[in-house]
Amino acid sequence: MSTHRPLRVALLGAGVVGGAVARLLTEHADDMAARVGAPLEIVGIAVRRAGRDRSDLGVDPALFTTDADELVTRADVVVEVIGGIEPARSLILRAIEHGASVVTANKALLAEDGPTLYAAAAENGVDLYYEAAVAGAIPLLRPLRESLAGDEVTRVLGIVNGTTNYVLDKMDTTGAGFADAVEQAQALGYAEADPTADVEGFDAAAKAAILASLAFHTRVSGTDVYREGITEVTAADVAAAREMDAVVKLLAICERSDRGVSVRVHPAMIPRTHPLAGVREAFNAVFVEADAAGQLMFYGKGAGGDPTASAVLGDIVAVARHRVGGGLGPGESSYADLPILTMGDAMTRYHISLDVEDRSGVLAQVASAFAAHDVSIETVRQQLVPGEAGQAARANLIIVTHTATDAALSSTVERLRTLDVVRGVNSVMRVEGS
Amino acid sequence: MSTHRPLRVALLGAGVVGGAVARLLTEHADDMAARVGAPLEIVGIAVRRAGRDRSDLGVDPALFTTDADELVTRADVVVEVIGGIEPARSLILRAIEHGASVVTANKALLAEDGPTLYAAAAENGVDLYYEAAVAGAIPLLRPLRESLAGDEVTRVLGIVNGTTNYVLDKMDTTGAGFADAVEQAQALGYAEADPTADVEGFDAAAKAAILASLAFHTRVSGTDVYREGITEVTAADVAAAREMDAVVKLLAICERSDRGVSVRVHPAMIPRTHPLAGVREAFNAVFVEADAAGQLMFYGKGAGGDPTASAVLGDIVAVARHRVGGGLGPGESSYADLPILTMGDAMTRYHISLDVEDRSGVLAQVASAFAAHDVSIETVRQQLVPGEAGQAARANLIIVTHTATDAALSSTVERLRTLDVVRGVNSVMRVEGS
Repeated sequence: MSTHRPLRVALLGAGVVGGAVARLLTEHADDMAARVGAPLEIVGIAVRRAGRDRSDLGVDPALFTTDADELVTRADVVVEVIGGIEPARSLILRAIEHGASVVTANKALLAEDGPTLYAAAAENGVDLYYEAAVAGAIPLLRPLRESLAGDEVTRVLGIVNGTTNYVLDKMDTTGAGFADAVEQAQALGYAEADPTADVEGFDAAAKAAILASLAFHTRVSGTDVYREGITEVTAADVAAAREMDAVVKLLAICERSDRGVSVRVHPAMIPRTHPLAGVREAFNAVFVEADAAGQLMFYGKGAGGDPTASAVLGDIVAVARHRVGGGLGPGESSYADLPILTMGDAMTRYHISLDVEDRSGVLAQVASAFAAHDVSIETVRQQLVPGEAGQAARANLIIVTHTATDAALSSTVERLRTLDVVRGVNSVMRVEGS
Repeated sequence: MSTHRPLRVALLGAGVVGGAVARLLTEHADDMAARVGAPLEIVGIAVRRAGRDRSDLGVDPALFTTDADELVTRADVVVEVIGGIEPARSLILRAIEHGASVVTANKALLAEDGPTLYAAAAENGVDLYYEAAVAGAIPLLRPLRESLAGDEVTRVLGIVNGTTNYVLDKMDTTGAGFADAVEQAQALGYAEADPTADVEGFDAAAKAAILASLAFHTRVSGTDVYREGITEVTAADVAAAREMDAVVKLLAICERSDRGVSVRVHPAMIPRTHPLAGVREAFNAVFVEADAAGQLMFYGKGAGGDPTASAVLGDIVAVARHRVGGGLGPGESSYADLPILTMGDAMTRYHISLDVEDRSGVLAQVASAFAAHDVSIETVRQQLVPGEAGQAARANLIIVTHTATDAALSSTVERLRTLDVVRGVNSVMRVEGS
């Protein structure tokens, strides 16, 4: 562990995202200190009103302050999760002028006035990171800015608004009209009571501006983005897309050609074979085409307290590590030597196909073999196999198990092979991804 | 532009990847210099045999050398794309001891002896980057190591071998058996003449070790990985998966639990609704579950000269930038002010649904409206609409265009509205993603 002095972190905002950041900073304090090379110390949390009970965040109540102006002057890292243009912009500029690095999740501000902020950060030699501002938890900033730094991005297609993707997905899977799908989304908390910012594409347009700036290393603001929402998309449009073997998505599109940059947000049909077509419910994804890398896609949760906080925390570690002066090496100091389990200890599920006699009591015997090894059965399906002349009737049993250790599952299969009623084990395959 | 002295880059290997790196370093020299803050200068390319014609790489023939031992002592950044354990390991260690930062794409070496290399880099205060070693062009290193640095990764499921994914995908889509699918893959260049390293899971196991080390910040070597290939997967297994609404994939699985870390490679069924199920042909994807971020997926090309070179170049920019002393800010110095096109100038395609009279000459009139605006039609589909009593016969025309400017497309639609034979424009939607 390093002996660097603690880095002072100021948090502006204690809403859904700010609360999650405060909680995770506390919960993961040791891990983060190891990765940064110095402890991170929350020196204050700016809130609009004093006195509200925030004991759920697990931080010292004395840290809450309503004087954000003062707080930003005594921090190494300022985390802005208030949102909106003001006072966020003034506070960020003030923090930068006082030499703090800044982490923000503020898409509206970056889309409106990003260049001013980037320039201020560059002038003061501090970092300004904003991974959480586009597509929440999905790491895009580093891939676009760093991993592809030697390549040339030609096109970005993004599903960057979870509400509209949820609505369009429901229209596609249930045949519902726009109004019904919005109602469903509202009932499930995927859409606001006033869904305008989402369904009219304003949210997506702000993110498109940030994406285009990142992808093409050029200045694009929210007002440069052509914007069309999904309010005019009808059940007939969705059905027409289906007939084309396509699906309707609200896309943020950033294209670079010899003529210039095109940045737009509008509903569009995309073929069902396209990776973006499989992005369901409120998930987000960004599809990138680069000269040498070819097609890439980044998928994940675009909103929510914890996912957004995860992105904010990654940025905090990065800017804090810069201040400690550490490189971005593999972080050997924090390498743990965790025990490595054998395959027998791995937890998995099995899909087993058996040839069995078709007589009473067979299933009971098979089930006992599973029970004897504490393996729980999820589903059993039995199919009669037409018997040949003079042969006993046979059946095919398909068994899918719940999760168990690979050792228990494999012993169960050995046991099944010894049963008289089992004529053969046709196949055994593990099941993952559920 | 910075006035920093040029950074000396030594390239070890001039095969498919090395050749692409050399070519792209030359082609993108200006962009990379802007992003690094100093020009990158290739000071030598180590090859096994002298005299081979490499004029296609566009570099000075005098740069080729067979003395790699000497070359690594006079570089700031050493790029190792030879592959294999030796002499790659000795050369990397020698480069590190001489103070060079290293970029490598060598999964076999990292899986076998990564910790030795990481330790040597840490001791000598240099960077060791290896984005290209797992999943080629897909940015994983930075997302796992940095973006998720404040989160806790609990599980990684990866499709990290393109050959086996191609084979399993063909078995799924065509019902072919394993041997036939391998033959198809070989014919198309997706599988080697001797496909053992791929189909037996050795390649995936090396990558699983690297992924687990990255995801869990612990030491995992190739020999810790349980490995089962796809040679035993039958057409019947794939059909059984299909009946379960699942698909068989070769997965690299890294799991972390209270008991320890489990790292394994084996075929498994995953539900078709899982994002990994949609990964087709020779593409790769890595699905990550983290405590706060939730589910993430990274998708792209896992192999090939240009995609791998793209990842190598990103690493070169990163380690070079560290040597110049620059932070990882948004790189304002390299910001271009590219012209931003209006929506009218954007290139897109339209799907148009028209209600038309059902009489001869209608299609000709409609087609002329498109031709008048230089919009080329890709497909037309006509459906007869049952006419009501006393009304003229009607038809529904579905037209999908080729790419054109949005202005031309929108003028075409305006024109269509004025035609007598067009009773109504039912819907107009853009088509993307092809």
